[in-house]
Amino acid sequence: MTLSSAKRIHHIDFVVHDLNVAIPKYESVLGLPAGPRERLASRGIDLVRFRVGETWIILVQPVRKEGPVAKFLDRHGEGFFHIAFEVDDVDAAVTRLEATGIRVVERTARRGVEGWKLVDIHPGETFGAMLQLAETTER
Amino acid sequence: MTLSSAKRIHHIDFVVHDLNVAIPKYESVLGLPAGPRERLASRGIDLVRFRVGETWIILVQPVRKEGPVAKFLDRHGEGFFHIAFEVDDVDAAVTRLEATGIRVVERTARRGVEGWKLVDIHPGETFGAMLQLAETTER
Repeated sequence: MTLSSAKRIHHIDFVVHDLNVAIPKYESVLGLPAGPRERLASRGIDLVRFRVGETWIILVQPVRKEGPVAKFLDRHGEGFFHIAFEVDDVDAAVTRLEATGIRVVERTARRGVEGWKLVDIHPGETFGAMLQLAETTER
Repeated sequence: MTLSSAKRIHHIDFVVHDLNVAIPKYESVLGLPAGPRERLASRGIDLVRFRVGETWIILVQPVRKEGPVAKFLDRHGEGFFHIAFEVDDVDAAVTRLEATGIRVVERTARRGVEGWKLVDIHPGETFGAMLQLAETTER
């Protein structure tokens, strides 16, 4: 496959109101311990990660009233937020997508935790699912 | 980790109205070809799978007006449906969950495509996310 195709599911985010309530439930369901609490100030969120196989499962809690995650929680309530597919080259992937008429929210990648380069696919393209491409230096 | 803990994300389902419309969009986003169309009569659905790393991404279209997937589509519209974590022994996992007070929808596993043994976690336990445990004979 080309450099711009999805090679693994990098992470899946679930939005919750309160990490302290959600963490023990997810630890029970997965049978795995949560990682330490982290803050991503640029998005106004706290998060914890679980490692399941090659994928991060991430619980996200807004810590400010503004920002896309707080807005999502207000509108949709708790639950699935988005899924990120890892590609080798996120800029090449955006170019490929646009060549097939798929829109992205912003062409320039934003930064997640650990410098992940993230581009959101426009949700109108994927029938209600919120998909994302990620380029990382992991593994 | 114990035999009943999550070892990989086995599959993620997205519900769509029309596979014929959704397949080319997802092929563009993922840069990967969809597999053949399959029917799971017991659930009243047609589906196609994409293989991304160690996980199946599955697009699901109801082909009957009854059944849980058609109901979900009516209520919530297109989008993320559920995520299944693979465990070695789904019955042991249910026993472990119940010991920590986590409810499942039905204790007896139902069968997915290729005989996957599937147990749904009660959505009230996971803050709106629909999680599932899967036991398979793959790999």
